[in-house]
Amino acid sequence: MIIVFKKSATEEEISHVVDRIKSLGLAVHLSKGEERTIIGAIGDESLLASTPLEALPGVEKVMPILKPYKVVSRDFKAEPTVIDVMGTKIGAKEVRVIAGPCSVETMDLLKDCATKVKEGGASFLRGGAFKPRTSPYSFQGLGEEGLKFLAEAKKETGLPIVSELMDPRDIELLCEYVDIIQIGARNMQNFRLLTEVGRVKKPVLLKRGLAATIKEFLMSAEYIASQGNTDIILCERGIRTFETATRNTLDLSAVPVLKQETHLPVFIDPSHATGKWSLVTPLSMAAVAVGADGLMIEVHSDPENALCDGEQSLKPAKFAELMKMIGGIAATVGRTV
Amino acid sequence: MIIVFKKSATEEEISHVVDRIKSLGLAVHLSKGEERTIIGAIGDESLLASTPLEALPGVEKVMPILKPYKVVSRDFKAEPTVIDVMGTKIGAKEVRVIAGPCSVETMDLLKDCATKVKEGGASFLRGGAFKPRTSPYSFQGLGEEGLKFLAEAKKETGLPIVSELMDPRDIELLCEYVDIIQIGARNMQNFRLLTEVGRVKKPVLLKRGLAATIKEFLMSAEYIASQGNTDIILCERGIRTFETATRNTLDLSAVPVLKQETHLPVFIDPSHATGKWSLVTPLSMAAVAVGADGLMIEVHSDPENALCDGEQSLKPAKFAELMKMIGGIAATVGRTV
Amino acid sequence: MIIVFKKSATEEEISHVVDRIKSLGLAVHLSKGEERTIIGAIGDESLLASTPLEALPGVEKVMPILKPYKVVSRDFKAEPTVIDVMGTKIGAKEVRVIAGPCSVETMDLLKDCATKVKEGGASFLRGGAFKPRTSPYSFQGLGEEGLKFLAEAKKETGLPIVSELMDPRDIELLCEYVDIIQIGARNMQNFRLLTEVGRVKKPVLLKRGLAATIKEFLMSAEYIASQGNTDIILCERGIRTFETATRNTLDLSAVPVLKQETHLPVFIDPSHATGKWSLVTPLSMAAVAVGADGLMIEVHSDPENALCDGEQSLKPAKFAELMKMIGGIAATVGRTV
Amino acid sequence: MIIVFKKSATEEEISHVVDRIKSLGLAVHLSKGEERTIIGAIGDESLLASTPLEALPGVEKVMPILKPYKVVSRDFKAEPTVIDVMGTKIGAKEVRVIAGPCSVETMDLLKDCATKVKEGGASFLRGGAFKPRTSPYSFQGLGEEGLKFLAEAKKETGLPIVSELMDPRDIELLCEYVDIIQIGARNMQNFRLLTEVGRVKKPVLLKRGLAATIKEFLMSAEYIASQGNTDIILCERGIRTFETATRNTLDLSAVPVLKQETHLPVFIDPSHATGKWSLVTPLSMAAVAVGADGLMIEVHSDPENALCDGEQSLKPAKFAELMKMIGGIAATVGRTV
Repeated sequence: MIIVFKKSATEEEISHVVDRIKSLGLAVHLSKGEERTIIGAIGDESLLASTPLEALPGVEKVMPILKPYKVVSRDFKAEPTVIDVMGTKIGAKEVRVIAGPCSVETMDLLKDCATKVKEGGASFLRGGAFKPRTSPYSFQGLGEEGLKFLAEAKKETGLPIVSELMDPRDIELLCEYVDIIQIGARNMQNFRLLTEVGRVKKPVLLKRGLAATIKEFLMSAEYIASQGNTDIILCERGIRTFETATRNTLDLSAVPVLKQETHLPVFIDPSHATGKWSLVTPLSMAAVAVGADGLMIEVHSDPENALCDGEQSLKPAKFAELMKMIGGIAATVGRTV
Repeated sequence: MIIVFKKSATEEEISHVVDRIKSLGLAVHLSKGEERTIIGAIGDESLLASTPLEALPGVEKVMPILKPYKVVSRDFKAEPTVIDVMGTKIGAKEVRVIAGPCSVETMDLLKDCATKVKEGGASFLRGGAFKPRTSPYSFQGLGEEGLKFLAEAKKETGLPIVSELMDPRDIELLCEYVDIIQIGARNMQNFRLLTEVGRVKKPVLLKRGLAATIKEFLMSAEYIASQGNTDIILCERGIRTFETATRNTLDLSAVPVLKQETHLPVFIDPSHATGKWSLVTPLSMAAVAVGADGLMIEVHSDPENALCDGEQSLKPAKFAELMKMIGGIAATVGRTV
Repeated sequence: MIIVFKKSATEEEISHVVDRIKSLGLAVHLSKGEERTIIGAIGDESLLASTPLEALPGVEKVMPILKPYKVVSRDFKAEPTVIDVMGTKIGAKEVRVIAGPCSVETMDLLKDCATKVKEGGASFLRGGAFKPRTSPYSFQGLGEEGLKFLAEAKKETGLPIVSELMDPRDIELLCEYVDIIQIGARNMQNFRLLTEVGRVKKPVLLKRGLAATIKEFLMSAEYIASQGNTDIILCERGIRTFETATRNTLDLSAVPVLKQETHLPVFIDPSHATGKWSLVTPLSMAAVAVGADGLMIEVHSDPENALCDGEQSLKPAKFAELMKMIGGIAATVGRTV
Repeated sequence: MIIVFKKSATEEEISHVVDRIKSLGLAVHLSKGEERTIIGAIGDESLLASTPLEALPGVEKVMPILKPYKVVSRDFKAEPTVIDVMGTKIGAKEVRVIAGPCSVETMDLLKDCATKVKEGGASFLRGGAFKPRTSPYSFQGLGEEGLKFLAEAKKETGLPIVSELMDPRDIELLCEYVDIIQIGARNMQNFRLLTEVGRVKKPVLLKRGLAATIKEFLMSAEYIASQGNTDIILCERGIRTFETATRNTLDLSAVPVLKQETHLPVFIDPSHATGKWSLVTPLSMAAVAVGADGLMIEVHSDPENALCDGEQSLKPAKFAELMKMIGGIAATVGRTV
């Protein structure tokens, strides 16, 4: 931790800060320059984390040296984390695709969609049973019935299931049916939910919040990891900016940045990021080119009649084309699909 | 709902959309201009809400006419909502101040702070028992013990209590101790939590999410109201922008905008918005000048040793000064403090 | 400057950076911690400004200690700058109001407006002769004829003139007619324009760019000041965020932050920030409450027929009311209007 | 144009708006629904552009039907624009790369860099002679001398030159030396500069402003095109968001969106967007995958000693690798490099 004093800081103010830091068990290196006095606090920075040094008189700014995340960082573990879900590896050479409808609607629609995304080349089936909707008047999902449909579709296709957890009270139920628990963007800082999924033995797909920095995204992963569960897939799905041409702004730079910072696999969800089906294929190609370990794609057999997110859903035939396109890209970056 | 077609839209594409709208029970007004064909869908717009018209071939854009919130809107109820908490009115002539520490730490500190904010003129005591912290390694709050301390402080000072709910499983417990349930910014779209607080008979203080538009903020209030609980206080606490000089950017324009759109009372939290105690008083004055019904202010008897948010907490003496300053402003806008 | 090395940095990489800094004439303080090696570069930080230390192998991050602005900073000059324009002081006890139409349209309209804003209590008349318009097909201003109208209105009312400079080629012409040169938000980083206005002896009203941080805003002021002209008025006029309920988001926190950082006077333009006349009065009140030295308000005698920004223009009667309201606020903060 | 009235709008208010629209020569279609009265204004929407209908009493909102840009839109011209610069085609099958140093520093460095980027496969040489720098104390470019060096490098390598125009007074000078005029992000709404480059017969590379929507970006292109020059290359270079891990957030979704909206070629500048050389290659690959017509890459023979942007410059060897990587991607999307 570096503490920079105001030009006007008095000797008293400076020694007060020095004493404060020493009392917490850290050593102090004091440097008086012509323009500013600076303190380097040497030792376990986390001891200072909850001390409001910036509130002390005379202090201009406080600059942490270390990153706040540990278990999820590359410094902690250099090799990439590979997650094995029923024999399907995530974070290894193969680019993995999770596909399926936004929400589970009927058994027939789901089975049809599951069969077709499997044919197209998807490795996982997604489908929401519990749906976070902006409006209380929109379709909220089928609940447990939806989970049962997903289990049925899994039995038929062999595709492992990804579905969202919205409420800590549903975790046991969800764990009976799904293979990967999804934490949605709006719950990225629902710390109780993160703690709960940190305690189960299921991989977690954690979506980046609309207004979350990469640092905060990794801190949320750290919440999960700190409870013991390190099978975490990070998923960028667009951040909120001033641009309205797309629903959110897909931050593809986050992929190589995350790859430098963490050992966890990184996925991209171009469907929610853009909100428009016509943009999904080009951005999926870009995602694979930039180094993503996988994609999450909304597919619906009948988007016109979808109860949720029809605008951004691909029809199965378009999805099959997308899979071919990303296959070509994957080959040029030394991966497979 | 207005549907605008692409210049290239075919007759077939247009009639497909017309049929789709009619099949949902709405009337269609078709207008063929030189540049564009336009449809006005006449009838209950909510019937179209989950129909992805933008996904239909030939459609360029879809423009809703009505606002998505109902119960919380001024159109629904013109007179301002006044909430009575143990005889203290919120949303009436008097500007109300909720003050207290970020988190409950010890009984002594809390009682000291409660006594002093009461002397300063606060109407409510705040204090977190369950704390949403960015890092899993930070102090997470005292839990039920913290609630008991709050109850004790209430007994001593008579100040009603405001405290945050993070988990639907805690709602019964919280309701035993607190007078206003706070929903934090990070949970503004935790729809399960909103549904739960919509079913109890306690006023709710709903904080705006960091990346929430005013429309989404009102939709979250609508979630609560749609369950029957309309005693909702809206609280703006800064939105996330590119500016880093303050923790977030306090959106004071939201106050007059919300006053036009909704009948609910509107509060401002300048402590979390700015993250710096030295900015709290000027922004509190601005908040009262712009028409806020109340303020939420962090006060700590010993900010240097606070376990949470010390940088932004006022000492009791500064808080007393703040109360005097906003008293003057309130008088010029026809209110009292 | 503090340089933090990656955990993986080698001895060679570290000594390369040390040598680089020494070769630029700075002293080096090296500190090897358990987690990270850190260098403090001691001496004139500006010598390092154009050295891309972050590009050197082994470097994790570089943290500057000093602020990049000098002449405009409080450290450089503690007392507030007071600008005298024809005897009217800006930045002193009196809150100053610049009012008038967005663009100069006709002599009659301008004279009418000027007379009325003077009656209302404005200290300066604004009016655009050169207009930066988003569309090439919109009204672009009257040019020199507009300046002549402004001079005429000044003769009649005695109000000094504020008008915008868009092109370095117009500076001499503009200086003949106006008393304060405005640099618009879109030109805040038009460095050639800044350099030019830095060389004349006219006060400059510099508007904050839509996407400019406070630091960049001050750097643009520094551009002007570095050429010799320190009569600079800073004007916050809304920043671009995701919120669409207002045209931009007025950042009122910028006022107390700027007051801490710089000695220059700070104005607020609520008309452009909100884009809606109904929000102008409450935000003007908030601006005075938060400590602004002045306001810039769009007033038009006939907003319905304005060629520019009619939506956000107050009628003269509404403006007179606004002046009364801010008079009350000013009194409670120890100022006059 | 659709005009939606408030629920509370009176008959008088509605007829006032009707009269206003009719007086401008448009026809009016009035529709009274249960919830809202709506007007469709039929005819030339541009006649209404400068009429502040939202300011009229009773009006809730105004929704334009048509896009504000014309000449640059796909509706106006369906086939892609191909620009021929000395026989090198931009916007055709081949992905084009502009490479070179941020600023021209010495003849030797420039020649060395030019030779190497040519060997690597670049089609154009970039280099700033006039530099927009955030600080007045940073290197501002060599001016005309820099242009002469560029001309020299062109003579030696045959690479056409791209360089930035900052000031309308320099346009003649610049046109003598360069083949493509660059308008920088900070000048995207410097309308005088846009007008000037619209009047010359040189292709223009227009960079997107940090806070510019895609609509505003196209309006700036329209400024140029409206003067007669339609040889415009659009260049996305990162937008300003809350994320600080990269300098700006590269908006790759803008590529397919722009491809739908306009016939102009679209380039990507990953160097400025990210500010970090290690991110340039993966994002270049993503840019080609998503459909960009070209790239603009900063290359410096000695980044450690660069006077500008060393952190984001690739060394020539890294650039050669990048070219190979994008070659593979280009092949899978049916293009060449």
